[in-house]
Amino acid sequence: MKNKQVCLASRPSGWVTPENFSVREAEIGEPGDGEVLVKNLFMSVDPYMRGRMNDVKSYIPPFQLGDVLQAGVVGEVVSSKYDELSEGDHVTGMLGWENYSIADGRTLRKLPPTKAPLSWHLGILGMPGMTAYVGLTQIAEAKSGEHLFVSAASGAVGSVVGQLGKILGCRVAGSAGSDEKVALLREEFGYDAAFNYKSSDSLLQSVQEVCPQGVDVSFENVGGEQMEAVLWCMRDFGRIALCGMIADYNAEEPPPGPRGMMLMIGRRLTMRGFIVTDHPEACEEYVVKAIQWIADGKLKYRETITEGVENAPQAFIDLLKGGKTGKQIVQLA
Amino acid sequence: MKNKQVCLASRPSGWVTPENFSVREAEIGEPGDGEVLVKNLFMSVDPYMRGRMNDVKSYIPPFQLGDVLQAGVVGEVVSSKYDELSEGDHVTGMLGWENYSIADGRTLRKLPPTKAPLSWHLGILGMPGMTAYVGLTQIAEAKSGEHLFVSAASGAVGSVVGQLGKILGCRVAGSAGSDEKVALLREEFGYDAAFNYKSSDSLLQSVQEVCPQGVDVSFENVGGEQMEAVLWCMRDFGRIALCGMIADYNAEEPPPGPRGMMLMIGRRLTMRGFIVTDHPEACEEYVVKAIQWIADGKLKYRETITEGVENAPQAFIDLLKGGKTGKQIVQLA
Repeated sequence: MKNKQVCLASRPSGWVTPENFSVREAEIGEPGDGEVLVKNLFMSVDPYMRGRMNDVKSYIPPFQLGDVLQAGVVGEVVSSKYDELSEGDHVTGMLGWENYSIADGRTLRKLPPTKAPLSWHLGILGMPGMTAYVGLTQIAEAKSGEHLFVSAASGAVGSVVGQLGKILGCRVAGSAGSDEKVALLREEFGYDAAFNYKSSDSLLQSVQEVCPQGVDVSFENVGGEQMEAVLWCMRDFGRIALCGMIADYNAEEPPPGPRGMMLMIGRRLTMRGFIVTDHPEACEEYVVKAIQWIADGKLKYRETITEGVENAPQAFIDLLKGGKTGKQIVQLA
Repeated sequence: MKNKQVCLASRPSGWVTPENFSVREAEIGEPGDGEVLVKNLFMSVDPYMRGRMNDVKSYIPPFQLGDVLQAGVVGEVVSSKYDELSEGDHVTGMLGWENYSIADGRTLRKLPPTKAPLSWHLGILGMPGMTAYVGLTQIAEAKSGEHLFVSAASGAVGSVVGQLGKILGCRVAGSAGSDEKVALLREEFGYDAAFNYKSSDSLLQSVQEVCPQGVDVSFENVGGEQMEAVLWCMRDFGRIALCGMIADYNAEEPPPGPRGMMLMIGRRLTMRGFIVTDHPEACEEYVVKAIQWIADGKLKYRETITEGVENAPQAFIDLLKGGKTGKQIVQLA
């Protein structure tokens, strides 16, 4: 039994290409004291990983050349030398793009019992769902009756943001990159209005059309021109939660910010960047609530599943280009 | 006795010029019921007035062509048909660029007793001082031990921000537009470090030099390239209080925002625009404190005084070009 691993072969300049990755086979090791051997079942690919491929200091360290890449993983304990985990337990943690990982037991979280599929702990019950909840409730402090706009609204985070917005009592609008995704937003995720940003002649006009009364809360996943269009539609005392700027991730130079920053003053706007891991209490609170909302049918979820660790690089590249709907998962075993 | 008035002759396109103004003489009227006739003693010219010269909806309505311009004024009541004000009272309010104004008594504030000169109610004890206090304490929530950076630091607002920062226990650095102003920041206003942005080869490097440990709180009066340089120096969980963007006021098209907006996410930054009049309680609190701080010698103040209402347009133009130090006042009588 071999352990297939995906490593960083070279750092991308601009868009990520398959040549930035290499695949190798390694032996499966034995866990040491306090460690656990995990058979990885599902791994997550997420836009933030693009940042870790650059050699730049950030809130998480960059991937190193030649090393196995890291991702959020759901797996099953194969053998354990850590008291609080046993063979057969399902766990989640930051592990490798590989079939088997050895990890310090303290870095793993045992999954709570739920009827939801295991892979959902990487999406709606994992970091993307928690990010949606933290951004909407802690950062933007969205309230009932407010007008919410979400960019990349059909993505792993955006699809949850919109549904949570409806649960909070907001009017919810968003943008996505295909007519199919726009239909999904309205028909499955409960969005009141949505538009296809790729076929829009004027992003400003499109945002105005889907938010005719303006925007109180913007949940920003995209940045760039969409962020600028939404800025111009913000209502007095509006809040912009900055979650991601996927439009900028592959830029070789930092692109300029939105025109019209002066609107921030006249309209008394707040723009706030956040990282979900700074808010562990809100995350715990969310998982409990989300399990109930899913059971009640108030929170729906879509995944795109790719099979085989060797196909993870292409799944990641497709994700950055916006080709897929819902949460991108790689099934490893 | 005639009333000299300055009116808006045309809307500026780009920089303001003397031709945008006209001067006329009018009769002095009589106050009606509930009104007060005020002899205007001092008027304020402030950068925000530039916005009101454009025909654009904002938090205050635009000036109208042919109308007398408005400004913050300190004056003396000449005759009153408003119960709560009497002849000889000193008042402040939004009145005209003119020698005499008639105003609804409810829109005037009777000045509290203080040994400070009357004109100070337009500066350190008026809107600029209140703006400094609100921005620093309510918007940026600056705390003892934090690193504060102030742009346009020798201006009417900036000079107070720095001194309040020192009172709060912050380390304070700033930028100004001449070596003379930079010296004043260090020698009179207690700044720990300052630089001349006009002679800087690299704004980023200059900010790094005056804030070697980075910036927790940025009090932004300028916008543009200075704002971008400070953004790159922000520390994790930093706050940027957006007070003004004088660099952008004369632009014909909204200029792009700062490059590197993605830093807002990784460093969990908050950027918040504000208008002082939204915070009346903090303003009242400030005036009481400021009178004491001035008496204790903890808060210093500089004015540039121009004489004659007909010279107000040039004083305003000089202000926008950054020629003067401290608060720009026009003495009317």
